[in-house]
Amino acid sequence: MSHINRQWRLAKRPVGTVSTGDLDLREETLPPLGEGDVRVRHIYLSLDPTNRIWMSDMDQYMPPVKIGDVMRGGTLGVVEESRHNDLEAGDIVSGLGGWQDYYVGPAKYAKKVTAPPGIPLTALMSVLGTTGLTAYFGLLDIGKPQPGETIVVSAAAGAVGSIVGQIAKIKGCRAIGIAGSDDKCRWITQDLGFDGAINYKSENVKQRLGDLCPDGIDVDFENVGGDILDAVLSRINLNARIALCGLISSYNATAPVPGPYYFANILMKRVTVQGFIIMDFAPRFAEGVAALAQWVADGRIKYRDHVVSGLENAPEAINQLFTGGNIGKLLIQVSPEP
Amino acid sequence: MSHINRQWRLAKRPVGTVSTGDLDLREETLPPLGEGDVRVRHIYLSLDPTNRIWMSDMDQYMPPVKIGDVMRGGTLGVVEESRHNDLEAGDIVSGLGGWQDYYVGPAKYAKKVTAPPGIPLTALMSVLGTTGLTAYFGLLDIGKPQPGETIVVSAAAGAVGSIVGQIAKIKGCRAIGIAGSDDKCRWITQDLGFDGAINYKSENVKQRLGDLCPDGIDVDFENVGGDILDAVLSRINLNARIALCGLISSYNATAPVPGPYYFANILMKRVTVQGFIIMDFAPRFAEGVAALAQWVADGRIKYRDHVVSGLENAPEAINQLFTGGNIGKLLIQVSPEP
Repeated sequence: MSHINRQWRLAKRPVGTVSTGDLDLREETLPPLGEGDVRVRHIYLSLDPTNRIWMSDMDQYMPPVKIGDVMRGGTLGVVEESRHNDLEAGDIVSGLGGWQDYYVGPAKYAKKVTAPPGIPLTALMSVLGTTGLTAYFGLLDIGKPQPGETIVVSAAAGAVGSIVGQIAKIKGCRAIGIAGSDDKCRWITQDLGFDGAINYKSENVKQRLGDLCPDGIDVDFENVGGDILDAVLSRINLNARIALCGLISSYNATAPVPGPYYFANILMKRVTVQGFIIMDFAPRFAEGVAALAQWVADGRIKYRDHVVSGLENAPEAINQLFTGGNIGKLLIQVSPEP
Repeated sequence: MSHINRQWRLAKRPVGTVSTGDLDLREETLPPLGEGDVRVRHIYLSLDPTNRIWMSDMDQYMPPVKIGDVMRGGTLGVVEESRHNDLEAGDIVSGLGGWQDYYVGPAKYAKKVTAPPGIPLTALMSVLGTTGLTAYFGLLDIGKPQPGETIVVSAAAGAVGSIVGQIAKIKGCRAIGIAGSDDKCRWITQDLGFDGAINYKSENVKQRLGDLCPDGIDVDFENVGGDILDAVLSRINLNARIALCGLISSYNATAPVPGPYYFANILMKRVTVQGFIIMDFAPRFAEGVAALAQWVADGRIKYRDHVVSGLENAPEAINQLFTGGNIGKLLIQVSPEP
């Protein structure tokens, strides 16, 4: 039996947002499995801001995707065939399977995962996956929030930001979120328990931060950069911590982007800014998943998954991350759940 | 007996470099000593880049000097009269005595100091004073240099930078300095043992950093900011540390200054940037002074003091820090040593 595998391959490096022609949809016949290989049918594909970095040739933390290669992406799938003892047909696995229907290759790149009872598979790609873990370790290990402190998070209705604010609340902090619509602001305050929210598209962020953070900002979980980070730095407290997780405002930039105008406050306020990626914490993932799963089970953390149907829609869908079209974790449904 | 005390008082906030009329030289008759007071005749006045910050009303780590107040400044002096048991006439004391001939006030603001045998008094204002301590704690505690790593320091022929590079060498690192003249570059490489130097006024800093740091930059001791910091960030290594000590390139700015264009590399390379001031380490000063004094005694650390005569010349002399006129620690000789 031969399988047709649709693949999105990078045709050229996008200029600005991802456009038609930047990626090509090809069809290939799957190769037969070698010794130690598995074939995984992808169920969900994770769309993340960092995908846009991988498409570019900017200085980055992993090699960029090469022109002509299958686009890199996080995946959740089901094993259909295995020639490795660690996996068998029916196992659910996660990995960096890429923007394609199937992964065929060494079993070591497919990690068996199990959803806790009552938790949907999509959660393994969001709150119990790398986005939830990014919130957990970035906030707790780098932000080091103390009870009573004020935490600000940008892209607060996104997959990471929405979890950051809820963990901050669990830790006894005041949580203020910055998001891009009134709907998002309502969701994070009314449903998720944030203490305040700012709609950066309709409000003066700097002024509103002054209103909502009368004692200043102790921890910033930064996903956005640009004007948003500048506004935060203008209100930053002595010895504050900035967990630098993303700079999404600049990923589509077509000209050099200056750093924050309030950069000097890092010196004046003796702030610590630390860039990180979640893989730095890989040895401690089990700890993070256990804590997050417990909080989800207890109803202390809520989350949303925003599922777009069809691998063919991935290039268009990813732009939602930059225009603010999604609430919660953005996923592509590649094929049905088993 | 009454004493005439000359005082530089801040008349208005400088725009750009310090100019005639920004500070007024006044003469006052010293008040009589109250219970617990001392009268200190100033011998040396420390001129530091941070003085320019104190003159401005920018967001900063201490309150700015108020218009009409005596300019704040670090001082070394001799006690002439004491009404406090802890001090007696002839004691050498350091403090923030300000830009004036005498300090009259509570003894607690005058700290008794002693130069080790064979060490001149000026060293208490430089290598064994706050500038040496800034180099020591900033490099070792924030930069955390490991043997074999590459350290870059800007303003490398200055009071702090020249010590930073020598401590880096003592710790088994490669030290590259950025300075503003060929003389300075020769001094730090030939006399102080730096592995390389870049004259930022005549060379392409980014390109030369590539030549001199073929394995990238692991620690940046940042005194300057602006284009210099940008060039460093363009060559920064994974998990590098930036000890943010100063941003001297922007202190005279008359318009908002953007942060570094390579700011995104803090994220991509998972860099830690930490602003600090030396007072954060005050409880450990004795440790730092002991280590520095030993290295000076062993000939492993060399230093230069650049002494300008006459309190009346302070406002003009301080601009040397920004134009590159001094090598090593810039001091004003206010009165003769006892």
